[in-house]
Amino acid sequence: MDRLRVVKIGGNVIDSPEDLRALLQRFASMEGPKVLVHGGGKLATELSGRLGIAPKMMDGRRITSEQDLEVVTMVYAGLINKRITAQLQALGCNAIGLSGADGNVILAQKRPVKEVDFGLVGDVVQVSGPFLSGLVEQGISPVLCAITHDGTGQLLNTNADTIASGVAVALSRFYELELIYCFEKKGVLRDVADEDSVIPMLHPALYAERKAAGAIHSGMLPKLDNCFLALERGVGRVLITDGENLGEEHPQGTVIKLNG
Amino acid sequence: MDRLRVVKIGGNVIDSPEDLRALLQRFASMEGPKVLVHGGGKLATELSGRLGIAPKMMDGRRITSEQDLEVVTMVYAGLINKRITAQLQALGCNAIGLSGADGNVILAQKRPVKEVDFGLVGDVVQVSGPFLSGLVEQGISPVLCAITHDGTGQLLNTNADTIASGVAVALSRFYELELIYCFEKKGVLRDVADEDSVIPMLHPALYAERKAAGAIHSGMLPKLDNCFLALERGVGRVLITDGENLGEEHPQGTVIKLNG
Repeated sequence: MDRLRVVKIGGNVIDSPEDLRALLQRFASMEGPKVLVHGGGKLATELSGRLGIAPKMMDGRRITSEQDLEVVTMVYAGLINKRITAQLQALGCNAIGLSGADGNVILAQKRPVKEVDFGLVGDVVQVSGPFLSGLVEQGISPVLCAITHDGTGQLLNTNADTIASGVAVALSRFYELELIYCFEKKGVLRDVADEDSVIPMLHPALYAERKAAGAIHSGMLPKLDNCFLALERGVGRVLITDGENLGEEHPQGTVIKLNG
Repeated sequence: MDRLRVVKIGGNVIDSPEDLRALLQRFASMEGPKVLVHGGGKLATELSGRLGIAPKMMDGRRITSEQDLEVVTMVYAGLINKRITAQLQALGCNAIGLSGADGNVILAQKRPVKEVDFGLVGDVVQVSGPFLSGLVEQGISPVLCAITHDGTGQLLNTNADTIASGVAVALSRFYELELIYCFEKKGVLRDVADEDSVIPMLHPALYAERKAAGAIHSGMLPKLDNCFLALERGVGRVLITDGENLGEEHPQGTVIKLNG
């Protein structure tokens, strides 16, 4: 099987045009089949602010109203997705920007209401691996934003980390899959105060230990849970990195493994 | 050769959710391969207004500033394109929303500056017929918005009528092509005051005659010029209609022909 890499980039990179350009250059220079998944960044929040749309909260959780959905659809699927796609074309990387509705590539369902109704938020139900691999086989790199649909005409706001792992799992039937999460740190840190204390390899036992010690917490927990889930479901390798060495054969960061 | 239909819908349909839904139902019910091209409607103007972005004019012509381009990219490639795509999916029509940057499907160039610098406006240079026909052969209907790119990373605002004719011409190498322009009238009218005075067939001699009589003017002129150009470049049939009978084998309207 050929190797395919799914790279997820977060909001922090998107907020800086220079950082985004540099990261896209590294992505474009990567050999072999590849897919990009991008988050949103601050542009949507800024646009909401300019439009006077106040964030809706319930029990301390952010919920997605109809107005919020319009804003994220415009910013994620429109501005950011098309900017990235046009920049990749300029770098010689034939990219195609997609929301989940395009080619029915990601079907989602509105998150079921338990304690909180999160509004127009979607959980991934199905990712079309054959459609994505068909594009990849044509030498095209899919660029996925975090907008999905539910099959009844409703668009939904979806977590970009979850999309990245869902896409990687769906494509692992066709390729030897490597999932790379780029974020602002060089990897998972042993000591949050020391930027260079990157844990080279994290397996479930070490994850449990670091979690119990309180050294891994808050936003990293769902991210790492996503990583382990992807490995359990067929993804060969997961890496957490700052993306500085993305173009290299073995970029630095924390490798997530099921067996230590 | 199979028949393929390229349908262009304008802003007036997009401004009314009910009209849009009805038109998309008719489009979805059309048998055989098909492509949709959509204009913008008033949503972009509304959003600019809410953001306090004043239209920039020069010598009475609207020009596209960087801020305008951001707005139309958000509204055309984001909100409208993804809404249409999600609605078509719900109607059982597997659609894929595209800007010109996606798959490098429409390469444009910034309009050369003569008397007026129109700003970030693009004229179509090349449409990738093979890429579009590859999607169509998978049973997917491309849905194109009027945002293109220039290959150097710059997105450009482009006339949707021109995109429709460019797409039709590019696909006429692979299919027996019918280009259908939907607009607010039932066709080209003999008497603008009489909605039912549809000219069933318009050829160059009759066009010249009606133009000289002042019965066809302003916005209809570039639209009809586009139609004749498409026919000259290989499109088999061009129809101007209100789209009310789009699902039928022979929808009503004005057929544009090179020979009377």
